[in-house]
Amino acid sequence: MLNQKFLSLEEALSLFLSQITFRSLPSEIVPIEESYNRILFEDLFSPEDLPGFERSTVDGFAVRASDTFGAKETSPVYLKLKGEIPMGEIPKFSIESGEAASVSTGGMLPEGADAVVMLEQVNLVSSDLIEVLKPVAPGENVIFKDEDVKKGELVLKAGHRLKPQDVGALAGLGITHLRVVKKPTVAIILTGDEVVPHFEKISPGKVRDINSFTLAGLIEEIGGKPLKMGIVKDEYEEIKKVTEEAFIKSDVILITGGTSVGTKDMVAQVINDLGNPGILFHGVTIKPGKPLIGGICQGKPIFGLPGHPVAVYICFKLFVEPVLKKMMGIKVREFKSHHIKAKMQRSLSSQAGRIDFIRVALEERDGNLWAIPLLSKSGLIMSLVKADGIVKISSSSLGVEEGEEVEVELI
Amino acid sequence: MLNQKFLSLEEALSLFLSQITFRSLPSEIVPIEESYNRILFEDLFSPEDLPGFERSTVDGFAVRASDTFGAKETSPVYLKLKGEIPMGEIPKFSIESGEAASVSTGGMLPEGADAVVMLEQVNLVSSDLIEVLKPVAPGENVIFKDEDVKKGELVLKAGHRLKPQDVGALAGLGITHLRVVKKPTVAIILTGDEVVPHFEKISPGKVRDINSFTLAGLIEEIGGKPLKMGIVKDEYEEIKKVTEEAFIKSDVILITGGTSVGTKDMVAQVINDLGNPGILFHGVTIKPGKPLIGGICQGKPIFGLPGHPVAVYICFKLFVEPVLKKMMGIKVREFKSHHIKAKMQRSLSSQAGRIDFIRVALEERDGNLWAIPLLSKSGLIMSLVKADGIVKISSSSLGVEEGEEVEVELI
Repeated sequence: MLNQKFLSLEEALSLFLSQITFRSLPSEIVPIEESYNRILFEDLFSPEDLPGFERSTVDGFAVRASDTFGAKETSPVYLKLKGEIPMGEIPKFSIESGEAASVSTGGMLPEGADAVVMLEQVNLVSSDLIEVLKPVAPGENVIFKDEDVKKGELVLKAGHRLKPQDVGALAGLGITHLRVVKKPTVAIILTGDEVVPHFEKISPGKVRDINSFTLAGLIEEIGGKPLKMGIVKDEYEEIKKVTEEAFIKSDVILITGGTSVGTKDMVAQVINDLGNPGILFHGVTIKPGKPLIGGICQGKPIFGLPGHPVAVYICFKLFVEPVLKKMMGIKVREFKSHHIKAKMQRSLSSQAGRIDFIRVALEERDGNLWAIPLLSKSGLIMSLVKADGIVKISSSSLGVEEGEEVEVELI
Repeated sequence: MLNQKFLSLEEALSLFLSQITFRSLPSEIVPIEESYNRILFEDLFSPEDLPGFERSTVDGFAVRASDTFGAKETSPVYLKLKGEIPMGEIPKFSIESGEAASVSTGGMLPEGADAVVMLEQVNLVSSDLIEVLKPVAPGENVIFKDEDVKKGELVLKAGHRLKPQDVGALAGLGITHLRVVKKPTVAIILTGDEVVPHFEKISPGKVRDINSFTLAGLIEEIGGKPLKMGIVKDEYEEIKKVTEEAFIKSDVILITGGTSVGTKDMVAQVINDLGNPGILFHGVTIKPGKPLIGGICQGKPIFGLPGHPVAVYICFKLFVEPVLKKMMGIKVREFKSHHIKAKMQRSLSSQAGRIDFIRVALEERDGNLWAIPLLSKSGLIMSLVKADGIVKISSSSLGVEEGEEVEVELI
C-alpha cells in the first residue's frame, strides 16, 4: 500500500557518501600509549635518521672487508682481536688493517671497520687472534646510519589506523605524542513504546533494549564513541526533543525503532525538521533493512534504522560504518579480506532487484565447509549469536542452490 | 660455534602447550556494558522464554487463519476490523471468527488470533472492514512464546569471545552481569644495555624501546593486560630481581632482548632458577625468532624473546598468543581465516628444515595482487610499518619462485 521509491544499496550509499566530507572530524594530540587503533590525522615523517649509527646486524667480528678478501677454510685470514665492543656504547678504539673487534647484534661499528664477519665463519685461535674462513664485502652485515629510516622520510600516512607494531615504530623514532582524528561521537536513540531497559523484568507485549548494546559495540570497534540517549516514547515531540539534544552532543545520530507504521513517519518528519537537506533516501532494496532512512541535517548524518536487531546490524555495517570511515578519513585498502568460501546447505530463493543478506552458521562436514542459513522467523536473539557470517545474494540473482559455493563475510 | 639442539616450530609449540592447563585463569563478574571482547567463563543458558508472548513478525492484521482459507484477489474474504493493537501493550480485546485487528511488527497477538495477514495482502474497505486477498496458515507471520529462545536453552558457550551482537542478545535476555575470564596480566621486561626509553634522546650506540609498545598492543588485542616492568641492565642479578617481581604480579612473563651472547645465557639462567620445570626449549628452527626461549616456572609461562622487533612480533603471534588463548579457555574455530592469495614479486630462497616468515607489502598491479618481500637489512622500523602481511615458507621448501602464488596472512 506504500508507494515509495526505494533506492538500490549502491544508489543510496553513493548518494549519501557524496554528501559527506572526507575527514570532517577535528584532531587531538594523544600520547602514543593511547594511540592504538586511532587514526593518524596527518602524514608522519621521521624526525631523525635511524639507526643513527652503523650497527652490526649479526653476532660476529667487525673488520675491514678488504682484509678478508681471499679467505677460505683452507687458507684463513688471521686478524688480531683488539677487544670487545660493549652493547650500547661508542667503541673506545678504532680498527686498523689486520685487526678485528668482537661485536654483538645491534652493536656499534668501531671507526675503521666497514663490515662484520659472522661468528660462524670465524675460529678463535687464542684470546687475541681469530682466523676468518670466508670473505665479507664492504657493508656486509652492517646497517648504515640512515638505512632503516631517513630523517624526513614518510613513515605513516594520514588516515592510517595504528597497529601495535606501528606504535612500536613510533616509539623507536622517539615520538611521544601524535595527532590523531578525534573519535566521532555517535548518539543512539531508541524509539518504541514496547522497548524497556535491559535490567527490567518484561511483561507481555514488551521487549528489552538489544540495539543500544549491539550498536555501542560496533561503534567502538570502528573507533567511535557511543552516546546512549535512552529509550523514547513513540511521540513526535519526544523524539524531536531527544534528537535535538543529540544533535548538539554528537557527530552522527542513529535513531532505531519505529516499528509501528506511525512512528516511521515521525522519525522521517523529525529528520526533515532538523535542517537541510534532510532526508536523502527512505527505503532501500535490501533485506533485512528495507525501511532504512538516511538523512543529513546541517552536515550531520542521521540514520533512521529499523527496530529489528538483525536489520540494525546489517544497516550499520552497510551504511553507518562507511560514513564513519569517510568522516575519520580512513583510506580503505581493498584487499583486507574477511571472506571465506563455503557451500550453501540448502536452496534459498531471492527476489530480483533486491539484495538479500542471509545470516549463516558455518559447519565443517566431510572436509567441506557448509553455510547453514539461520532463517528462524525473525528470531531476534539466536540468529544474532549463532551467525558466523553473512552471505549476500545479489539483486540480479533469483537465489542460490543447495551445494552452490558462496562467499561468506565473517562477522 | 653453538652446539644447541633446536626444536621445530611444531615440536616447541606442542611441547609448551601440553604443559599449559586449558582455562587456568580465574573468573570475575562484569556488567554487560564492560563485557565486549571478554571471554565467557561458563556456558550461558537463557533465564526465560523469549519473546515470552506471541508476536507479529510483520505489519498487518491479526486474524484466525481458518477465516482466510480460500481467499483470493477475485473473491476476497471480508473481516470486521475490531481495532488496533498498541505497541508494547496487552491487547484489550480478543478476536472472534470473522474479526481482525491491525498490528505492527513486534506487536502482541490478541487472544483468539493465530496468524497475521501482511498489510500488502489486504485492502481497507472502510474504517471497520477489510478484505483479505490471500489465505494465511495458522502460525504464519507469528513468532511463538519460546520460539526465539527457550528457557534453559544454551545461548553461548564458555570460551566464547563476546561480539557486539552477543552483548545485544544478552541485554535482550535481561542479563545485566556475567562471569568472564579474568584478563591475564602479561609482564614485559626489556633487557639490553643499549635500550633507552622512547622519550629519551639517543646517542650513538643506543636504540629506543620499540618492543614494549608493540607487545602492549598485541597483549591488549588478544584480551590481556600488559604490565611494563621497564628496562633492565644486562646483569644477572638485575634481571633476576625484576623477573621475581614480575612473577608475583603477573600470569605470563615476557623477557625481550638479550642481544649480546652473554645476556642470552643470563635470561636462560634466570628462567631456570625461578622454578620447575624451567626451560622447555631454547632455540626454534624459525626465522626470524630462532633464539626464542620457552619455559614454565611453577606453572607460569615465561618467554625469552629475541630483541629484534620483527622477531618479537613473530614469536608473540606464534607462541605467546596460543598460550594466552589456552589459558583463557578460548576455543579456536579453525575457519576464521585472515588469509589472502597473492603472487610473489621476487624469488626467495629458504633453508630446508627451517620455517621462514617473510614480511610482505601488498600491491595491486595488472589485476593481480603482488606480495613484495620487505628484506631490508634487519630494518627495525620500516619493515614493521610497511608490512601488510606475512608469508610462511615451510621447512620442507627451498624457497619460492617469482610469480608463484603464496598465502599471505594479513596482519
